[in-house]
Amino acid sequence: MSDARPDPHRTPDADAIALAQDILGHARDAVLSVLDAEGWPMASRVALQAGRDGCPLAMLSDLALHTAALRADPRAALLIDAAPPEDGRGMTLNRPRLSLQVKAQLLAAREAEGQRRLWVERDPKAAIYIRLADFRLWRLEPRGGLLNAGFGRAYRLTAADLSR
Amino acid sequence: MSDARPDPHRTPDADAIALAQDILGHARDAVLSVLDAEGWPMASRVALQAGRDGCPLAMLSDLALHTAALRADPRAALLIDAAPPEDGRGMTLNRPRLSLQVKAQLLAAREAEGQRRLWVERDPKAAIYIRLADFRLWRLEPRGGLLNAGFGRAYRLTAADLSR
Repeated sequence: MSDARPDPHRTPDADAIALAQDILGHARDAVLSVLDAEGWPMASRVALQAGRDGCPLAMLSDLALHTAALRADPRAALLIDAAPPEDGRGMTLNRPRLSLQVKAQLLAAREAEGQRRLWVERDPKAAIYIRLADFRLWRLEPRGGLLNAGFGRAYRLTAADLSR
Repeated sequence: MSDARPDPHRTPDADAIALAQDILGHARDAVLSVLDAEGWPMASRVALQAGRDGCPLAMLSDLALHTAALRADPRAALLIDAAPPEDGRGMTLNRPRLSLQVKAQLLAAREAEGQRRLWVERDPKAAIYIRLADFRLWRLEPRGGLLNAGFGRAYRLTAADLSR
């Protein structure tokens, strides 16, 4: 997130890092932004969970445009909202959220097997699509990002802040 | 959304176009994806509503990284989820959504005034930030997009499908 201006974002304290890791740990979906063949952004909602090492993993169909885009250019971004409150009330805009810049890589088959088991344990309904031949796990390695923890409370995160 | 493969998306019928316009008409926020100075995608959640002519408008702070990015490169994308059901239940991933590619332009002052009134009528809490000097309205003109109306039901939309 290069920018020539002074950085208006705070350095995260322990509470901010804990909140960022909590949002990531509870994530079940996210908005994935990729680049099309012209370099124009393209956004879609995808199934996403943190892997065993805390790195975001996305379950993507080989038939989707975003997957073709990632094969051509692995540079991507994620927007992950905190889970809604139990009663489902309140505006999404008021919920904490993570904005990450990530580099995408298809997960090797031997690693994907264990991650798929963990994925279905956390989200049993995913069993419906996880065994379809065109769905594969992608590792989305953060290079950094921002935590928006409320109006005027934004923190700049490093890759190290997000790993555990 | 250029792609050399055969297009797996349907041409929208009247119901699909009505659903797309309904999602846009009820939108109060969206995920905005822009390009940073390196051309890497960057995603954030922003306040968004349809303007009087149906075109998406975003209320952006001049202090935000995404606004600096749009001033440097107006190519952007939006992901707009349908409003959640009354009880707030169900996974976001199962809700219909719009994925649009848009070109951003700062709204002229004379046009912004009327749009601001409509904005606060629809979202009274927006009165808190709408009068802050650094918040401005941006027009996000669609060049096309996709409607995801459920698993396996995806439609390709033209700019004309989204205007009214």
